[in-house]
Amino acid sequence: MEGNSFLRRLFLISAVASIVLLTLIALPTKPNPAKNQLLRHPATFKNDHVGDIPHHPLDPLTVQEMTRAHKAIKAFFAGKVYGVHSLVLEEPDKEVVRRWRKGEPLPRRKASVIGRAARKNYILTVDVESGEVTQHEAAHISGYPMLTLEEMGSVMYAPFSNADFNRTILARGVDLADVACLPFSPGWFGKAEDGRRLVKLECFTIKDTANFYMRPIEGVIVVTDVDTNQVVEIVEKGKHIPIPKAEGTDYRLDVANGPVIKLKSPVSMEQPNGPNFVIEDEHLVKWANWEFHLKPDPRAGVVISQARARDPETGVLRDVLYQGFSSELFVPYMDPEEAWYFKTYMDAGEYGFGLQALALEPLNDCPRNAKYMDAVFAASDGTPYVRSNMICLFERYAGDAAWRHTENPNTGELIREARPKISLVARMVASLANYDYVVDWEFHADGLINVKVSLTGIVIVKGTNYANMNQVNEDEAELYGTLLSDNIVGVVHDHYINFYLDMDVDGSDNSFVNVHLQRAYTNGISPRKSFMKVNKTVAKTEKDAQIKLKLTDPSEFHVINPNKKSRVGNPTGYKVVPAGTAASLLDPEDAPQMRNAFTNNQIWVTPYNKSERWSGGLFAYQSHGEDTLQVWSDRDRPIENKDIVLWYTLGFHHVPCQEDYPIMPTVSSGFDLKPVNFFSRNPVLRIAPYVESELPVCKAAASA
Amino acid sequence: MEGNSFLRRLFLISAVASIVLLTLIALPTKPNPAKNQLLRHPATFKNDHVGDIPHHPLDPLTVQEMTRAHKAIKAFFAGKVYGVHSLVLEEPDKEVVRRWRKGEPLPRRKASVIGRAARKNYILTVDVESGEVTQHEAAHISGYPMLTLEEMGSVMYAPFSNADFNRTILARGVDLADVACLPFSPGWFGKAEDGRRLVKLECFTIKDTANFYMRPIEGVIVVTDVDTNQVVEIVEKGKHIPIPKAEGTDYRLDVANGPVIKLKSPVSMEQPNGPNFVIEDEHLVKWANWEFHLKPDPRAGVVISQARARDPETGVLRDVLYQGFSSELFVPYMDPEEAWYFKTYMDAGEYGFGLQALALEPLNDCPRNAKYMDAVFAASDGTPYVRSNMICLFERYAGDAAWRHTENPNTGELIREARPKISLVARMVASLANYDYVVDWEFHADGLINVKVSLTGIVIVKGTNYANMNQVNEDEAELYGTLLSDNIVGVVHDHYINFYLDMDVDGSDNSFVNVHLQRAYTNGISPRKSFMKVNKTVAKTEKDAQIKLKLTDPSEFHVINPNKKSRVGNPTGYKVVPAGTAASLLDPEDAPQMRNAFTNNQIWVTPYNKSERWSGGLFAYQSHGEDTLQVWSDRDRPIENKDIVLWYTLGFHHVPCQEDYPIMPTVSSGFDLKPVNFFSRNPVLRIAPYVESELPVCKAAASA
Repeated sequence: MEGNSFLRRLFLISAVASIVLLTLIALPTKPNPAKNQLLRHPATFKNDHVGDIPHHPLDPLTVQEMTRAHKAIKAFFAGKVYGVHSLVLEEPDKEVVRRWRKGEPLPRRKASVIGRAARKNYILTVDVESGEVTQHEAAHISGYPMLTLEEMGSVMYAPFSNADFNRTILARGVDLADVACLPFSPGWFGKAEDGRRLVKLECFTIKDTANFYMRPIEGVIVVTDVDTNQVVEIVEKGKHIPIPKAEGTDYRLDVANGPVIKLKSPVSMEQPNGPNFVIEDEHLVKWANWEFHLKPDPRAGVVISQARARDPETGVLRDVLYQGFSSELFVPYMDPEEAWYFKTYMDAGEYGFGLQALALEPLNDCPRNAKYMDAVFAASDGTPYVRSNMICLFERYAGDAAWRHTENPNTGELIREARPKISLVARMVASLANYDYVVDWEFHADGLINVKVSLTGIVIVKGTNYANMNQVNEDEAELYGTLLSDNIVGVVHDHYINFYLDMDVDGSDNSFVNVHLQRAYTNGISPRKSFMKVNKTVAKTEKDAQIKLKLTDPSEFHVINPNKKSRVGNPTGYKVVPAGTAASLLDPEDAPQMRNAFTNNQIWVTPYNKSERWSGGLFAYQSHGEDTLQVWSDRDRPIENKDIVLWYTLGFHHVPCQEDYPIMPTVSSGFDLKPVNFFSRNPVLRIAPYVESELPVCKAAASA
Repeated sequence: MEGNSFLRRLFLISAVASIVLLTLIALPTKPNPAKNQLLRHPATFKNDHVGDIPHHPLDPLTVQEMTRAHKAIKAFFAGKVYGVHSLVLEEPDKEVVRRWRKGEPLPRRKASVIGRAARKNYILTVDVESGEVTQHEAAHISGYPMLTLEEMGSVMYAPFSNADFNRTILARGVDLADVACLPFSPGWFGKAEDGRRLVKLECFTIKDTANFYMRPIEGVIVVTDVDTNQVVEIVEKGKHIPIPKAEGTDYRLDVANGPVIKLKSPVSMEQPNGPNFVIEDEHLVKWANWEFHLKPDPRAGVVISQARARDPETGVLRDVLYQGFSSELFVPYMDPEEAWYFKTYMDAGEYGFGLQALALEPLNDCPRNAKYMDAVFAASDGTPYVRSNMICLFERYAGDAAWRHTENPNTGELIREARPKISLVARMVASLANYDYVVDWEFHADGLINVKVSLTGIVIVKGTNYANMNQVNEDEAELYGTLLSDNIVGVVHDHYINFYLDMDVDGSDNSFVNVHLQRAYTNGISPRKSFMKVNKTVAKTEKDAQIKLKLTDPSEFHVINPNKKSRVGNPTGYKVVPAGTAASLLDPEDAPQMRNAFTNNQIWVTPYNKSERWSGGLFAYQSHGEDTLQVWSDRDRPIENKDIVLWYTLGFHHVPCQEDYPIMPTVSSGFDLKPVNFFSRNPVLRIAPYVESELPVCKAAASA
């Protein structure tokens, strides 16, 4: 049995992890990244990136640079057991990057390292060329760095060497060979989480389904110390709750039951001549009137830098966004019971939004005309590995018009003009255990940037005694969710995704303007009583820009350059167009809310500060909430005509429904960054219409 | 000069109209619709529809039926001068339609007619077979029917026979030969608009541009009686305001200046095997698991009826939406001055949202794989004509996933499943003079219906003395808009589009449930302080369902069938997912707001009532606001477990910006109708992924 159980557990070991742990165990610190060590996704692996060299100040660390950094880190820890929780480029100062021009030597390449040894957090800067290591103060910040994939993989074994745990599982009638436990972050609620780094393991039976999430061993929580892999406590609150059945839970094409639904004539996005974009030097994307730097990041996922739009009137490339990325996620579940209350995830800071972004599935995750970009990330010893196909880039035409108009004169000469809407999408998908987050940065030819997050994957569920709502005698609200299937409740929860948007509209010094729409009265000078008037206010300090959206008291929110006027004298600007809004209903003094206080407002503006990147704090894991956007913003610094950063939070309330079972149809929402008096007129006025003779010549596949 | 001016005016005559007026004048009452009379769009005309016969109780009147109705109408008015303002199918009672099955004889075909003669409104029912005409009471409702295209075309001439008008124009230094005046509805503000049917003509110079909207003769308003074409009053409030220049205003590909922007490799939506949908009997659309009846309507634009989704578990076709359409639009401009205060348009009730929907432009309004549907509408004498290509239908694949998930086990067997998201779009575009409204009804394979409205076309502008903002000494807000170019202000305005959604979830008797999300406290039973709890309330009467959305006090809004439970006992339902929300800031007692009181709430629910279709009133033109959704709903009728109608209003605040000049990039917003415990599990769980060998085989066009 042991052998079988071990293998089965192995099978599941990295359900939340994503690299080949066995390889790591076999070759834990091999200094030179040989091909077999880089090769973590045999199925999709194409390029070992060993020959890559950096071309741009913001280019991520290359395999060779990471290898040099690893050597220096190893030397720094001098034989101690250590973990590398983050190893990324230490970006040069913004002014250095802004001044740099292609052809000039790169600013000195440095690595930013977050490490851990002997129960202590380390923040290091490593000079990649010289190997010099500088240590920074880390003890003043509460919390811990994000878990490494290796820790996640390893801590999943911990319960099985505990006899109490094994007895608990056997008492539930489950074979240990069928059990897999996943490490969930414990949040922080006070003393219980102080002084040691914990995970709370929740266990599932993997018997008869790949969708083990639907088979929780409800109420069993194994509190474990991640630094030692020692079980601290076993909670059993679900003795009488049955394990939900496997039937109907599997979602795989080859395994699930029922006929396959197939539309016989596939619709495809076709571009036989290849894309109109180029990716120069690995990371610099040029498409239509856009240029931007695109890179993977283990924490943020995708980082967009130096997005600039070419003005069609002047041909000049103009700054729009110095940097944009998803800074933190907050996913609180709304069940106060013992096995659920702590589920208040911070997916970027606790697990790594990029670390969990796996290879995309061509044709289904991204259309046929997509191109893919790999990532190079560091394993927990600091050695590099390749994550293939982590980002895809594709041009989209979805059948919509960029603009159109019909006039219908009488001469027989009809005026009917329409232009196709074409955009460029940069996409990654993070699979945070059960949930999948699709993040799209979509650049439109008319200067608009749409940032969209789509939620899909698997809703995490709670076991229950109920098989039908007609058995529920208690207040239905006490289910804390929806009965999705026999013995399965989809627990109510929220998703918040906070974006860091360092706007540089026509240069770095910008102002934030609240363009307030308010009722005005004509006071008898007009047959009309009332109208809506625009009242613009420039935010002087951060508190002026802590925005709670209100439908009945609306504003537009502009980031303008007060020093740059359009041809007719309007300040040039971009506005953030909110959508996908939700406000957290948690008590502002509740620990999860304080740690994720970025949800207290939908919009914030801070002065640029290199150290303020992670809105839930640098060490989000078990953080106390003293290093958050709220705390920074409450300093109320001046923000007028300064280099400013805009923060926007997308929100989703999710009351699950049966359609979300056993896997959830995609739900999307996004916000726009939209030019507002940035261009002197419609920048796609002169875009060409589609004509039949220029479109692809297609025939159906023989097998279609 | 006269000849030239006459021709030039003719050229513009139907800038807001859309049929060949000359043909009408030549053949005003020809009883048999000969081909030349039906042929109103020579360029796109393909099918004269003379042979069409009705197949379904909701099929629109055919050419032959309309011809018979026309005869009866003519006989009814017995030689009097009359106008037909609406001639459409009088839909049979809902229960009759619901009971009808294919193969059974159609319920008796009747026409619903709104006419006008001798300054009186008429509401008639015409039995299409017998020719019998029934007259209904019409005098108790204030206001007038929508303008006919012929009235719009004809009243545009009125000013030119007025010497004062001609002097006014000449005094502005404009050649009369270059002038075109457009008829704008006057709204209703009290006595000035009582007792006579008015338009307010605003004039433009058409010299040197097709985009005459950018060349207003600002401040000149010609108040004209539409029943007599007599000028009532000429307002001149713009003597010192220059006519803005023509340069840079034209948007036509062949005429506008500047190099054409062309992406060299077109992206196309290709489906060489043709669509997966069928259109049976002209109007019944079948695609994936959806079936619905689709027809054009002169007032609503597109009407969707009997939308039903096939349950993938049982194969049963289940009711979702008995009927859905855009009921009214409200577009108030926010300038209280004499020439602008009245601009508070009700585009469906005043102009006909469908009447203004012209032929779509293949490849650019709709993608290459689209199919088109024609409309048959009635001219103002009651004779039919064909509007070609008014609606397009196409399948969309935009590169997104319907669902996806990655698990990453260690065995080398990666679980990575993703499915393409495919939908069916039914689209029309209404060109209401300057503005273009794209209305999309998008049916998704997973049961979701997304209704989207996109705004594009031309922003109506105000002439001003200012050429640059540095000349503005007054409060900037007194511009009532944004300086878009020299001497042009884009005036702030709103757009509201109200949708009638007669939900029939699994049958006609439904309830509306407010699924309220609210903060709850754990009161010390958990380390967590607070959570979010779901509290469901069934609306008993209409006032319970007058919903003002609030970000910090959120709800989901479900329409459920309380008599139909899912397998695990949840009531089956659909929810409306709000987006594109805006609340009117006008005073609730202001006349335009009272007439468009449907904007007082974002969501309403009324009991089904055949006569309550037009949320701004049947006779919206110069209406007083006593026949509106607010008035009906204030009766506070019971709505629990009844046949109910849901009303949703999409809203847009529009502060124009320079990018909107001279033609506006598309802005979109939409809401969803989403299954919620309607299906017992994800209905696209078994949808097939794309595989390379089945996708189209394409090569680039030789000319690309």
